[in-house]
Amino acid sequence: MAKPFDDYVVRPDPHDPRLTERVRGIDHTGTSVATGVVVERALTIFLNRQEIVTAMTINDYPEYLALGYLLNQNMLQPADVVTGVDYDEELAVVVVRTERATNYEQKLKKKVQTSGCAQGTVFGDLMEVIETARLPMAEFRTSWLYALTGKINTTPSLYLEAGAIHGCVLARRDGPLVYMEDVGRHNAVDKIAGWMFRERVAAHDKIFYTTGRLTSEMVIKTVRMGIPILVSRSGFTAWGVELARKAHLTLIGRARGKRFVALAGEDRIVFDQDLAYVEEESAKHRRKAAVHDE
Amino acid sequence: MAKPFDDYVVRPDPHDPRLTERVRGIDHTGTSVATGVVVERALTIFLNRQEIVTAMTINDYPEYLALGYLLNQNMLQPADVVTGVDYDEELAVVVVRTERATNYEQKLKKKVQTSGCAQGTVFGDLMEVIETARLPMAEFRTSWLYALTGKINTTPSLYLEAGAIHGCVLARRDGPLVYMEDVGRHNAVDKIAGWMFRERVAAHDKIFYTTGRLTSEMVIKTVRMGIPILVSRSGFTAWGVELARKAHLTLIGRARGKRFVALAGEDRIVFDQDLAYVEEESAKHRRKAAVHDE
Repeated sequence: MAKPFDDYVVRPDPHDPRLTERVRGIDHTGTSVATGVVVERALTIFLNRQEIVTAMTINDYPEYLALGYLLNQNMLQPADVVTGVDYDEELAVVVVRTERATNYEQKLKKKVQTSGCAQGTVFGDLMEVIETARLPMAEFRTSWLYALTGKINTTPSLYLEAGAIHGCVLARRDGPLVYMEDVGRHNAVDKIAGWMFRERVAAHDKIFYTTGRLTSEMVIKTVRMGIPILVSRSGFTAWGVELARKAHLTLIGRARGKRFVALAGEDRIVFDQDLAYVEEESAKHRRKAAVHDE
Repeated sequence: MAKPFDDYVVRPDPHDPRLTERVRGIDHTGTSVATGVVVERALTIFLNRQEIVTAMTINDYPEYLALGYLLNQNMLQPADVVTGVDYDEELAVVVVRTERATNYEQKLKKKVQTSGCAQGTVFGDLMEVIETARLPMAEFRTSWLYALTGKINTTPSLYLEAGAIHGCVLARRDGPLVYMEDVGRHNAVDKIAGWMFRERVAAHDKIFYTTGRLTSEMVIKTVRMGIPILVSRSGFTAWGVELARKAHLTLIGRARGKRFVALAGEDRIVFDQDLAYVEEESAKHRRKAAVHDE
């Protein structure tokens, strides 16, 4: 018999003692309590000799995060030959080395001017990704959606353990493959991008699921990865919808229980599920959803 | 008779046509639907002659956002004399002018190296804020908390209208004063900081409420504003808790229905509320909570 969660290649390890801390406080009755909180750590990413950024992360996959960050910033190209990814735990530094010489001094200057940390988003030449996107035709069956979200919602995770965390899942058909969590939702996306690059995983038959909102930045990253379908239990921003339509990305939001709304790339959706057999979210899942706003 | 929401000086205007867009798509039954989505716009902030950042915002209060952003980045000092805040709608630019000459070229370089856009957080000299914090003694009654969250949850907002948005509220005792929303939760915080600066509002008797997580960045900004109490319906990160304890900030999270957990500055809390008279969150509020993960 197959074990539950057998399909996963990578999934959260909520019992990893490095990822949460027990802290004491008081609850609403004034009683002393101990509770788990997620740990955030600074990780500095270098590309060859150049310091690029310090990210706050739970730091479970520093190598994937570094690769994915650089790819999603367009500093590393899919065709680049990576000669090494060296992580030094003590220094909290990860260095990505490439065959090609790199120098992003100009790019880093540009970034200052086009982005607000944790506020704006990095566009610049990333918009080219949208203009030149050629996402593959693919089908997305509603039966997969319901099976997939059911599996994701019941997978043991840091979010069920301690809250205050975002999650992203890479899936194929109705099977989740990689489930990454992080304090920043962009870290979770980048770790999946890094995993796909490192493991040479094809994108055309994949589905990307996120707990976060469907913003322009989320759409650009999904298109950058070459994945044709993006699903979220959260909502949309207007620019996210506009970019998804331009790139012909299938954009599905507010996916909860039997409900969802698709605002772009609707032609990929195959309505094969008899809704009479799909349950509304149970009270238990509603509570879970509530934790997710963190 | 007082009108409801009379206490507010600033509150969301969910019917402002500039803030949402109607878009068409299909729902889970394959039926064509129209739905409201929040608009995000690029706004470029200048400090005197220097371009500082381009933020993605709903752009309802560009002047407050610019002032608050600069204050929270430590580029504008509380004692600075602002000689003008000029917003050009067509160019999507806001320029803050100060009596003091400013030059943050070095600072901007540093920012590149210490932050990841929408991933990391801007620390650098902001950590000084924690080290030197002298937050006032104040009391925080649990009866205020329950009255306050009840009022906030029923205030008409973009979040109830279209989802996918964060909210922050500045309050005094059990009365909400300023309720700001934005696509980025840091924008919502910064707009409140800008409002307080512009309107010369005292911080020592205020309470800050956020829908977002209690991360290190959120704690630093609250301490920077001089507000002694920070409340969220979301959870904590370990570093957020650590910094709050260092700065003696009262940190209350997971505030839903009658429940909450306090992990720092517990001594300011006065348990004056008889919990027998507080309701658990209704199913209606649970749904609202669920929308909030966006």
